[in-house]
Amino acid sequence: MDRDEFVADCRVRAATDLFAHTWDPVVLAALASGPRRRRDLRLAIGGIRDKVLTDALRRLLAYGLIDRRAHAEAPPRVEYALTGLGRSLVDGPMRALGRWAIEHGDQLLDAER
Amino acid sequence: MDRDEFVADCRVRAATDLFAHTWDPVVLAALASGPRRRRDLRLAIGGIRDKVLTDALRRLLAYGLIDRRAHAEAPPRVEYALTGLGRSLVDGPMRALGRWAIEHGDQLLDAER
Repeated sequence: MDRDEFVADCRVRAATDLFAHTWDPVVLAALASGPRRRRDLRLAIGGIRDKVLTDALRRLLAYGLIDRRAHAEAPPRVEYALTGLGRSLVDGPMRALGRWAIEHGDQLLDAER
Repeated sequence: MDRDEFVADCRVRAATDLFAHTWDPVVLAALASGPRRRRDLRLAIGGIRDKVLTDALRRLLAYGLIDRRAHAEAPPRVEYALTGLGRSLVDGPMRALGRWAIEHGDQLLDAER
């Protein structure tokens, strides 16, 4: 990437905005291992309020990063899953950010104190 | 990275929060090519309000991602520069995110519309 693209490019700004809501990357990460029902998502994440999860799911659906799959069962089963786009975000930049955070995040937390 | 770390790890949350302010990554990217004076930063970025730049610089200084260098000249010259930590963020995860955005950002922008 040309560095100046980061400054000017609309696509890059749209991508950085994906991290503007704290819980959105957390929800994506919780779907990385496979589709999950809403209830299981809440359990996996822990400490996320119901409305906050609803808002995060709505944004991620609107961005096309996840989709919602209704299975014709009784009772009906609804699952959320990463789309191809969501998978590429999780496996690429989010993984790079996670690795960086594991290595350097303590410095950030120290600085915050 | 174990994916569940993204869900639970404080360091990872601190790192994703770095993208919570739209302009912070843009300012970091504008410093990637070398130290810059405040005025040059504003010109390079374009369209950033003075107060917004001030706030971004303050946060990035507090996180230890940039530092402020005063050169003993007449008139005194003050420059902002990436620290080692800031450089590692720009060259690692931010570059990965930029590459992803160049490739996939159009899909995000289409979804937003």
